[in-house]
Amino acid sequence: MKYTLFVFLIYCFFVQVNAQDSTLIRRIYDEALLRGHAYENLRQLCKDIGPRLSGSSQAQMAVDWSYEKMQSYAFDVVQKQAIKVPHWERGTTESAWFKESTNNAKLQKLQLLALGGSIGTNGLLEAEVIEFKSLSDLQNAKRQSVEGKIVFLNKPMDAAQIQTFKAYGACYAIRGNGAVEASKLGAKAVVIRSLGLPIDKHPHTGSMHYQNDVPKIPAAAISTQDADALSKALSSGKVRLFLELDCRDFTDVDSYNVMAELKGSIYPEQIITIGGHLDSWDTGEGAHDDGAGVIHCLEALRILKELGLKPTHTIRVVFFMNEENGNQGGKQYAEWCLANGEQQIAALESDRGGFAPRGFGLDGPDQFLDLIQRFEPTLRPYDLHIFEKGYGGVDIGPLKEKYPGIPLFGFIPDSQRYFDFHHAPSDVFEAVNKRELELGAAAIASFVYLLDLKL
Amino acid sequence: MKYTLFVFLIYCFFVQVNAQDSTLIRRIYDEALLRGHAYENLRQLCKDIGPRLSGSSQAQMAVDWSYEKMQSYAFDVVQKQAIKVPHWERGTTESAWFKESTNNAKLQKLQLLALGGSIGTNGLLEAEVIEFKSLSDLQNAKRQSVEGKIVFLNKPMDAAQIQTFKAYGACYAIRGNGAVEASKLGAKAVVIRSLGLPIDKHPHTGSMHYQNDVPKIPAAAISTQDADALSKALSSGKVRLFLELDCRDFTDVDSYNVMAELKGSIYPEQIITIGGHLDSWDTGEGAHDDGAGVIHCLEALRILKELGLKPTHTIRVVFFMNEENGNQGGKQYAEWCLANGEQQIAALESDRGGFAPRGFGLDGPDQFLDLIQRFEPTLRPYDLHIFEKGYGGVDIGPLKEKYPGIPLFGFIPDSQRYFDFHHAPSDVFEAVNKRELELGAAAIASFVYLLDLKL
Repeated sequence: MKYTLFVFLIYCFFVQVNAQDSTLIRRIYDEALLRGHAYENLRQLCKDIGPRLSGSSQAQMAVDWSYEKMQSYAFDVVQKQAIKVPHWERGTTESAWFKESTNNAKLQKLQLLALGGSIGTNGLLEAEVIEFKSLSDLQNAKRQSVEGKIVFLNKPMDAAQIQTFKAYGACYAIRGNGAVEASKLGAKAVVIRSLGLPIDKHPHTGSMHYQNDVPKIPAAAISTQDADALSKALSSGKVRLFLELDCRDFTDVDSYNVMAELKGSIYPEQIITIGGHLDSWDTGEGAHDDGAGVIHCLEALRILKELGLKPTHTIRVVFFMNEENGNQGGKQYAEWCLANGEQQIAALESDRGGFAPRGFGLDGPDQFLDLIQRFEPTLRPYDLHIFEKGYGGVDIGPLKEKYPGIPLFGFIPDSQRYFDFHHAPSDVFEAVNKRELELGAAAIASFVYLLDLKL
Repeated sequence: MKYTLFVFLIYCFFVQVNAQDSTLIRRIYDEALLRGHAYENLRQLCKDIGPRLSGSSQAQMAVDWSYEKMQSYAFDVVQKQAIKVPHWERGTTESAWFKESTNNAKLQKLQLLALGGSIGTNGLLEAEVIEFKSLSDLQNAKRQSVEGKIVFLNKPMDAAQIQTFKAYGACYAIRGNGAVEASKLGAKAVVIRSLGLPIDKHPHTGSMHYQNDVPKIPAAAISTQDADALSKALSSGKVRLFLELDCRDFTDVDSYNVMAELKGSIYPEQIITIGGHLDSWDTGEGAHDDGAGVIHCLEALRILKELGLKPTHTIRVVFFMNEENGNQGGKQYAEWCLANGEQQIAALESDRGGFAPRGFGLDGPDQFLDLIQRFEPTLRPYDLHIFEKGYGGVDIGPLKEKYPGIPLFGFIPDSQRYFDFHHAPSDVFEAVNKRELELGAAAIASFVYLLDLKL
């Protein structure tokens, strides 16, 4: 009988705790949806500042805006971490045309963007085009067929993938390694089909790299529509491509990660890091990538403070700089934490856009999977249903090496529209839906609230 | 030992069946995403025809287009069911202004749409405005405060609701019954705050009704932005409103439900009906409401046929006419089925927009809930996770009375953006995302495939 009573009391305790959690999470959502700051803050970041590539004046404006915004919310600590970041600029000339070999063929303009980090063409570059459907096709080609030509890598993202990030992952190496592989065979430049799912006119830029022992050649992405047009032209004869880019690298510059904290009431020395990246590519407005992510996390911290919730552990929002072309923010943050003797106990990243939330993925030990799966009954009424193993994020990734065993969580919104906008001129404020953005902030605030409570 | 073997064989059988199902569902998604017709068909319906209010020439064009499209797919049966539908037209004059009572106050224009079914104003109608925050506030008001005035019903949809349809449901009666309740107290007209979630300039129309013993008064919806402006003006003094509408009813006209079938290979006499509504409001292009729904179902049937799948039962797609202002299509379809001695064994409706799919709701006996919950493991890899009790839809609703116990299924896409577009000028083709639409068609095709197999 005593045992039964004990079990009953334990049961009541948990029901009570869960009921309290549910009430609090309802308050979090009310704050986000009825009195939220997320949409207006994203508007300021996108419209008053715009795209924010590392090393640009807009990136510095974004640092200043973030620092002032965090101070305006009177968080316990607001600080900047000085870091060095790369500085690459697109320049002012970025053009390409192609011409078929038939009589009277006209120049046809291509919509393109240099890939981030590419060298310029040093004037007009002209060569015959050779198309490959994959990186391995290029790698298996003979030097004599490639030498002196412009390589066109035309691999479409696989629209049949339900998770669009898988389709992206399968094409990622084309953007990153295309220039090196083409140059190894003597190509003069490389042009890739944009890593985007729709067939449209927006080219998608992104990072690429060179290799020390391989000559650098220019690299650019053309729109999916133009990739189809160029491929069609190539199917009926030889095609020449004319390319002019004056993008270039400058020396590294000073920049900052910007951060704010709510101090832990019981374990202030134990830190949960949540964040996204403040930098963006230099086209569009970096609205989904990753304006939404930093605004999500800022809004989550604002809501927890506004509701008077005292976290057990310290919760720190970090706006990372330079995720897009170097990840210096993420790398130097992890080093800085360790050098300062900080205890980093968990981290969460939002870097998959401001779409309707679906759940959270875990990169870390299984015990944390058990933990977050216990959140599901509380969060399911908010349309959150994914609590599974997954990926954390680029910015928080370096914490893994410095803090072995740390759980990294990735916020998972619906991914279907992400590659309409990713790294493209279409990634503007208007592409973000107000409710979807607010629900993301509320989902993250709720998850962090539960994580802090149960860790 | 024999028992163990038996259990093992049964287990193998089910594993085998599930593996076959999984392969087929993968093929359904490949067809929808790689070779789909949904997006182009929706473009034709929205751009070549446009909005399709019952009784309009566009509604007839849509009937003809649908019939020809179904015939082009060479389904087993393509037919039209003749029905009578209401015919209301917005007319050519639809304007409103308000004026504050201060000296030198100027007329301020309101963005508005007459509610469907409203009478016109018979010239310019002018009166003082009185605001109510809810229908019950109006019902509790004294006649002397309302008589001779224009009633302004200003209840915002509750943005804190996670399921936006719940927020809509809580405001629905304002649009439907506002005119009757205002007229009972002697009001000259009623103007409502649009049933839309964003604060923007798009008014949202929709159906309303009159009551035989209560004088008819004009009814219109103003945009949420204008509702806020009008409310603000009222908070600082008297406001007069000027309203002119020349909308009117005509006599009922002939129209059609349009349908196509794949005949059942084993039980051809048992019919699974799937559909949406072909008519739309006369603003925007009826893209989400309900172009997406009819295209979903047409595409689902096309995919099943294209893959050579022979359904066990007959699967019939119905494009219902007149869901928006009378539901004559739904009512007369149910009567027609019964009169023809048809066996209707299940029905599914898509009428919640072309957004990313989340699952299916059931309006019907519990045994069918058990059935569809067994679909979850097979459909979960496709991001479908809702399999629960819910609502079927307006068009298939009348089948319930004629076929007691019939399970009605409602397709559930993400609802967050729906009330940005619902019944508004913003509901255009461009508001529908290609992948989200295609995934909806694939989800429905997969669900219907499993339903047919397991029923």
